[in-house]
Amino acid sequence: MRLPIRNIFIAAMTLSGFLMFTTSAKTLNDEQLKTIEQLKQTTLQSDLSYQILESLTTEVGNRRLGTAGDKRAIKWAVAKMKALGFNKVWTEEVESPQWLRGDIEAQIITPYPHDMAAIGLGGTVGTLPKGIKAPVVEFKTLAALKAAKKGSLTGKIAFVSYRMKAKIDGGGYETAVATRGGGASIAAEKGALALIMRSVGTDNNRIAHTGMMRYKKGIKKIPAAALSNPDADILVNSLKRGKNVEFYLKITAQHHPEKLIKSASVIGEITGSETPDEIVALGAHLDSWDVGTGAMDDGMGIGIVLAAGAQIAKLPQRPKRTIRVILYAGEEVGFYGTRKYMELHKNEVAKHVIGAEWDFGLGKIYQIKAGVGARALNNIHDLAQILTPLGVAMSADNDAVAQSDMSLLSKAGMPSISFAADGLRYFDYHHTANDTLDKINPEDYKQNTAVYTVFAYFAAQAEVDFRK
Amino acid sequence: MRLPIRNIFIAAMTLSGFLMFTTSAKTLNDEQLKTIEQLKQTTLQSDLSYQILESLTTEVGNRRLGTAGDKRAIKWAVAKMKALGFNKVWTEEVESPQWLRGDIEAQIITPYPHDMAAIGLGGTVGTLPKGIKAPVVEFKTLAALKAAKKGSLTGKIAFVSYRMKAKIDGGGYETAVATRGGGASIAAEKGALALIMRSVGTDNNRIAHTGMMRYKKGIKKIPAAALSNPDADILVNSLKRGKNVEFYLKITAQHHPEKLIKSASVIGEITGSETPDEIVALGAHLDSWDVGTGAMDDGMGIGIVLAAGAQIAKLPQRPKRTIRVILYAGEEVGFYGTRKYMELHKNEVAKHVIGAEWDFGLGKIYQIKAGVGARALNNIHDLAQILTPLGVAMSADNDAVAQSDMSLLSKAGMPSISFAADGLRYFDYHHTANDTLDKINPEDYKQNTAVYTVFAYFAAQAEVDFRK
Repeated sequence: MRLPIRNIFIAAMTLSGFLMFTTSAKTLNDEQLKTIEQLKQTTLQSDLSYQILESLTTEVGNRRLGTAGDKRAIKWAVAKMKALGFNKVWTEEVESPQWLRGDIEAQIITPYPHDMAAIGLGGTVGTLPKGIKAPVVEFKTLAALKAAKKGSLTGKIAFVSYRMKAKIDGGGYETAVATRGGGASIAAEKGALALIMRSVGTDNNRIAHTGMMRYKKGIKKIPAAALSNPDADILVNSLKRGKNVEFYLKITAQHHPEKLIKSASVIGEITGSETPDEIVALGAHLDSWDVGTGAMDDGMGIGIVLAAGAQIAKLPQRPKRTIRVILYAGEEVGFYGTRKYMELHKNEVAKHVIGAEWDFGLGKIYQIKAGVGARALNNIHDLAQILTPLGVAMSADNDAVAQSDMSLLSKAGMPSISFAADGLRYFDYHHTANDTLDKINPEDYKQNTAVYTVFAYFAAQAEVDFRK
Repeated sequence: MRLPIRNIFIAAMTLSGFLMFTTSAKTLNDEQLKTIEQLKQTTLQSDLSYQILESLTTEVGNRRLGTAGDKRAIKWAVAKMKALGFNKVWTEEVESPQWLRGDIEAQIITPYPHDMAAIGLGGTVGTLPKGIKAPVVEFKTLAALKAAKKGSLTGKIAFVSYRMKAKIDGGGYETAVATRGGGASIAAEKGALALIMRSVGTDNNRIAHTGMMRYKKGIKKIPAAALSNPDADILVNSLKRGKNVEFYLKITAQHHPEKLIKSASVIGEITGSETPDEIVALGAHLDSWDVGTGAMDDGMGIGIVLAAGAQIAKLPQRPKRTIRVILYAGEEVGFYGTRKYMELHKNEVAKHVIGAEWDFGLGKIYQIKAGVGARALNNIHDLAQILTPLGVAMSADNDAVAQSDMSLLSKAGMPSISFAADGLRYFDYHHTANDTLDKINPEDYKQNTAVYTVFAYFAAQAEVDFRK
């Protein structure tokens, strides 16, 4: 998973980092620097975040908003935060209309029958109980589907075969995911009975990738499903032969908009010793998709931010500012927890002195990017120097927003950090049954945990105004 | 997939091979050597075997003995052989009792519920319609299960958690597969209600591996299923917590021993121009498991032996001996095709001058091993020299039996060759839904095809008695 050229780069950075560290990190005083160095080493050698992740993936498993797993996750998170030494723990309830996944059957019927590994997109409507039998029309891109004539897909199933490529920063996801988000309504506008698409995924496993989709208002809601990459290949190869390819799709998903299901974000604090109303925010999301055990997405984030809080709670003295760890509800299905948080804490946004979420990656963190006031950039450079021996380089840009849920706080003005973790293989497993503990490299995971721990302690001790 | 150290080795061998080739390959005359060199280059540059494999995996797909896919495969193979220039094509019928896979449901119920990715072993009995709910007892090895006291598993589900390691030659499969083959009857002897086992597989995908199992006579037949590696991990982690772990297993498999299903081996020849009764045998098996598209197992073998025949059929002159390509029926479920072949051709065994099957590997062929008479070893060395530039080294041993089905001919006295292809990642996909075309590296596949083509031509032209 590691690119050899980057290893050399990291080795070089490590060397120069040690030299730089001893000469110029000024935001913290000598005692604080000593503490942060110890904290870094302790965290690098600790498997606490992995233990937390093992606990979550074993004792909870998948946890889509409002499911039994989600309810177990909330209880688990409250108990875990308390056990890890967070001195204040609370929940913030959210509500969402109910969607039931149901089952799926997908097959090529003619000319060459194949059972297809497929999954319904999140929020899809079901088919009729007898399913849909219809010929397939392939589009190589979403743009090609958009360009199709109105009515040209009447009585047909639209198939978008675009394949996402693997990149270290997940680049290309936005392009690929556009079909997932809006493809069904575009296909429906052309008359299609259903949308099937190649999974937004970079693997070659017979495991399809789910994820949220949305219907455009006023357009007929048609069922939407993703095929695994090998299944999409079989369909492409079948279509290449120029014969009529008939497909069968049955989805028993159900919407119950009248039935509100409940969930909650879980929040814990290490209250600051000097300026407790100033908040350093660490985020991850508690929910996952209803397949896999949500080990990467976002179990890794949960383990990292909980372990960071726990390591700091174990210090003889609490840092000056409060460290608030927010495990957001319902990120996957529509940012429920973060929207609720913004509503409940709207008068407190300015008190969030800086924040970072963990919600992407699988390998080591290779970059820190700031989104702070110009006068605070030197301080972030000081932080970066402490992280340099871990292989973390400073981005030249200063436009970071916090990842995922926490981007809402960033957009409301919170100074933010974005750490880039190696995500070359992230989209092999993203939103699949294959998102399980075995995919996580314990050593890389320790490095990620150390980076977030160091960041939290640094920001909570630094007497710096990070605002723009 | 390639080991760097082997690439260097192969490069060195390539260099020395060219030098050796020009000085000492004596089994064939100069014109034949020129032809075989051209044949090698043509095959190395041709994607014919890949085209055949793409056709099989698209137009047929999976093809367990007696299924609709198997019937399509027989028709496909007959038509393909004729189209590829085999001058004689026939089928040899086999019969087998019917086994229906049905469906499977597997779950950890308590203390932490998880749906499990599982598959029934080939030939398993079903559970009652309501399924089995019972506590799980883990055994780290089959030996540990064997050592359990009689009656100690009454009312329980036995779980063997042994994990197979990946090796280039597939070593370790025999140990791991012993649980699959005989574990159910051993568990039943201790009183178990069912056997679940970690898949015989080296991957980390939520895709379980099937494969044949057998019941011991006089012992109660209990259901047997394999869990994917990540699912076995979840179960192991759940059991580690020392609590009672309840499991639910439902399998709707059915045996119909009274109902004989029909299938057939498909055989084609390039009849020899001088000694047509002398047969050079190339083998692969036509059937696959009823998951995946049988691309590796044994679609790769089918593509290789068909392309080898086709390339030789295209030569201006047929070789002296007959090349017989045998696509065996029902290898996976009990060697049906090869047993029938031995019965029908029992008086003809001595006419099989030499043979090789392709039924293992995914990467390049790195070794040729002979199983011939001592006086013919020099001739095999001549063949090996021609293959050296392809990275194929000669094994010092002379005890090869042909792979898989064709081992029956070897044991009956047929001189044999075994080519070792890189199988480091073979057991990631073996007997799973993930055995699909995308796993095959087209360049490595050309090399495999060239090796078998060169072998077939060499053996069909060499005026050598290979017998022991």
